[in-house]
Amino acid sequence: MQTHTYPSKLLERAVEELAKLPGIGNRTALRLALHLLRQPQADVEQFLTAIGEMKTNIHFCSVCHNISDTDICSICSSPSRDKTTICVVETIKDVMSIENTMQYKGVYHVLGGVINPMEGIGPNDLTINSLVERLSTSEVNEVIMALSATTEGDTTNFFIYKKIKNFPVMVTTLARGVAFGNELEYTDEVTLGRALLNRVRFDNSFSVE
Amino acid sequence: MQTHTYPSKLLERAVEELAKLPGIGNRTALRLALHLLRQPQADVEQFLTAIGEMKTNIHFCSVCHNISDTDICSICSSPSRDKTTICVVETIKDVMSIENTMQYKGVYHVLGGVINPMEGIGPNDLTINSLVERLSTSEVNEVIMALSATTEGDTTNFFIYKKIKNFPVMVTTLARGVAFGNELEYTDEVTLGRALLNRVRFDNSFSVE
Repeated sequence: MQTHTYPSKLLERAVEELAKLPGIGNRTALRLALHLLRQPQADVEQFLTAIGEMKTNIHFCSVCHNISDTDICSICSSPSRDKTTICVVETIKDVMSIENTMQYKGVYHVLGGVINPMEGIGPNDLTINSLVERLSTSEVNEVIMALSATTEGDTTNFFIYKKIKNFPVMVTTLARGVAFGNELEYTDEVTLGRALLNRVRFDNSFSVE
Repeated sequence: MQTHTYPSKLLERAVEELAKLPGIGNRTALRLALHLLRQPQADVEQFLTAIGEMKTNIHFCSVCHNISDTDICSICSSPSRDKTTICVVETIKDVMSIENTMQYKGVYHVLGGVINPMEGIGPNDLTINSLVERLSTSEVNEVIMALSATTEGDTTNFFIYKKIKNFPVMVTTLARGVAFGNELEYTDEVTLGRALLNRVRFDNSFSVE
């Protein structure tokens, strides 16, 4: 759709802003703007207030860098979580994904991404120093590296491992293998090769369930 | 994704509001919220201001009910548009679609929808009375009905036709036929039947181009 036919500058500007959101093109942005125009004023105000308050008032946990409404997040401040196990993840979304498995009772450390020279993300853009500080100031037995199974994730794993290997902690990484429900025929050879190398005793394979 | 694991009430509320937008589910809403959290404060403020100002300050043209930044829209106030031809459309989007064809030099009348008893939309919810008033107060030669080719569109066409048939105007409707680029094999029989009935002389068929 050409843009020179917007009947209103105000509409055009709102569409431009909405189209900056990831995955939202000009057509969808127009649909969203017209939808908002049709809603009652109070509903739109509530929409804008919710986003504005989130942006202005949200905290990042000073311990694990997860999103939080308070200075220390609900996971870090919970007495039922095991503070001696830290799971290192890239983003807040990963925390939510792992929490949804209900398999993990330790705490987290949100890096804010992985080392990616192509996108100009170096170690100092991540919360690696803060992780090192956590290890030196509190008692930690295990650090679980739960980063993406990509070259960037592997690089970051290795970088962090070098930084923390002198602490008395066990460093582990997520099991890599055939995903639940996947057929072997459609599993890529790297995954299949690793799954074969890291095979487990059949009677152990039930331990997670 | 389960919702009980949002690490922040503020985030949860923003996600809820974003998920109210048409075509945006919980997962996408979360992605958008986290994207906004990563943007600089000034950018998010600009985003919120653009939407807020659109909602608060936008006008609807008092003549044709199109969106406008002024009391009378740029089409209705343009001296180069033919005020004696009114094209009746459902929504603002339809105005933009027809403007994009660059084939139309008349003015518009935005109904705000079609008569749809199932959704509780009656004639009084549309700007039909305003159209009748336009016909009685200004000189109009032709009313082009450009509504959806659906039962609701046809019902609305007929309702409006009955209301305005005593005015000295020609009432026309968009040509229905095989869409440009469509193969006959995949054209539905109603469309094909009408296209056959309303066939035009071959030398006339170039007149639009």
